[in-house]
Amino acid sequence: MRRLELIGVEGLPEVRPGDDLGQLIAARAELETGDVLVVAQKVVSKAEGRLIDLNDVTAGTEAVRIAGRLIAKPDPRMVQVVLNESVRVLRSERVLITETRHGYVCANAGVDHSNAGGRDTLTLLPVDPDASAERLRARLGQLTGAEVGIIISDTFGRPWRLGIVNVALGVAGLPAMLDLRGTLDDDGSPLHATVLAVADELAAGAGLAMGKTDRTPVVLARGLRLEGHGTGRELIRPPAEDLFR
Amino acid sequence: MRRLELIGVEGLPEVRPGDDLGQLIAARAELETGDVLVVAQKVVSKAEGRLIDLNDVTAGTEAVRIAGRLIAKPDPRMVQVVLNESVRVLRSERVLITETRHGYVCANAGVDHSNAGGRDTLTLLPVDPDASAERLRARLGQLTGAEVGIIISDTFGRPWRLGIVNVALGVAGLPAMLDLRGTLDDDGSPLHATVLAVADELAAGAGLAMGKTDRTPVVLARGLRLEGHGTGRELIRPPAEDLFR
Repeated sequence: MRRLELIGVEGLPEVRPGDDLGQLIAARAELETGDVLVVAQKVVSKAEGRLIDLNDVTAGTEAVRIAGRLIAKPDPRMVQVVLNESVRVLRSERVLITETRHGYVCANAGVDHSNAGGRDTLTLLPVDPDASAERLRARLGQLTGAEVGIIISDTFGRPWRLGIVNVALGVAGLPAMLDLRGTLDDDGSPLHATVLAVADELAAGAGLAMGKTDRTPVVLARGLRLEGHGTGRELIRPPAEDLFR
Repeated sequence: MRRLELIGVEGLPEVRPGDDLGQLIAARAELETGDVLVVAQKVVSKAEGRLIDLNDVTAGTEAVRIAGRLIAKPDPRMVQVVLNESVRVLRSERVLITETRHGYVCANAGVDHSNAGGRDTLTLLPVDPDASAERLRARLGQLTGAEVGIIISDTFGRPWRLGIVNVALGVAGLPAMLDLRGTLDDDGSPLHATVLAVADELAAGAGLAMGKTDRTPVVLARGLRLEGHGTGRELIRPPAEDLFR
């Protein structure tokens, strides 16, 4: 019987810049080779020091203009930080949707208020989530001897569906996609359009075990049996291939 | 420790029109109150007789024209069936993306080749996936005494991300969304934009346990602790609220 377990890793302290996230996790989870850890972006960003103090930011005129049009009435300096993280603005009416430097299309470029003390601190997405995932994977291998997979995740909205779901930003040590094209289904017919975004499916499932706020930012997935190595970058659709409009 | 199990229900026979899907599942899973079953749309559609024989379809000129522009080079009669299931065509170049009568935006209106014998048979989405979910939930309650939740799922593509992920079409006996607005995060700051699409997250996670083809169309989720009753309809963003463009 195919059985997948998603287990919240409890008891992580508040993560601060410079913390050894691998050590914090290894001390709280019995890792086995083949396990995958889904780690909320926020704790990775904090450990990596991807924090901005709003007092160091000056909002430009564009940021001030956009801030006034958003439902959340954000601090214009936060909008400035979002613009700095973005290469393209898709929408700036009511909500701010941009394309980040990585290529993600999401609200506020993934910039969020930190809950690590201080209302004036923002977290940014990791510069290279795949590299962050690979570093954490290597560190955990060193500490525990287990060959684990890592997904660094964040919650994104969707254009035609309400609510946010957890998705995979960085991936290391497991495939991001499972390409079934060319294989046959039970009837012997070729499978169509069956490239499964397995890393996104796993991030989403793990989102359920992360709890309501950020109390459980690390979830251990056991029983997956996914072979191979992918990257989160593979999951980003090139803008030229946006097939939906 | 928060622990969620996703268990593939194995040994289901090929489902045919008129089959008692509740009985087929109840015979193969020990259900407990609080469990959620994620059921692939295809077996629900088959049990409900939502099948079309291509030999009963005549392709109109629009269907013929579109079929010639699609990468998959589909039978124009299949395109006709997709158009019949749709209220709006979003894209008909290379791939066919439409809005279904339910309001889903997806490829081919969820119409798929059946693998239940016969290459000339297509499956359609259930007419009312929430009603299908509620019927299955009631039937399983009758058969087992367990109060379970049901998600009827299908795999959809996403505009800015590659690969398909399993999503919730019909929902009964569990919430579809978890609205955290107004609650406070660990720092005491109000949470923003935190309406979690929990039914979609669960459908996605269950997709990993469904296996590569349709061999495991039913997955049992245990350990969720979600209270409340929602519908799949709630997950559809009204077209007027498409905030992403």
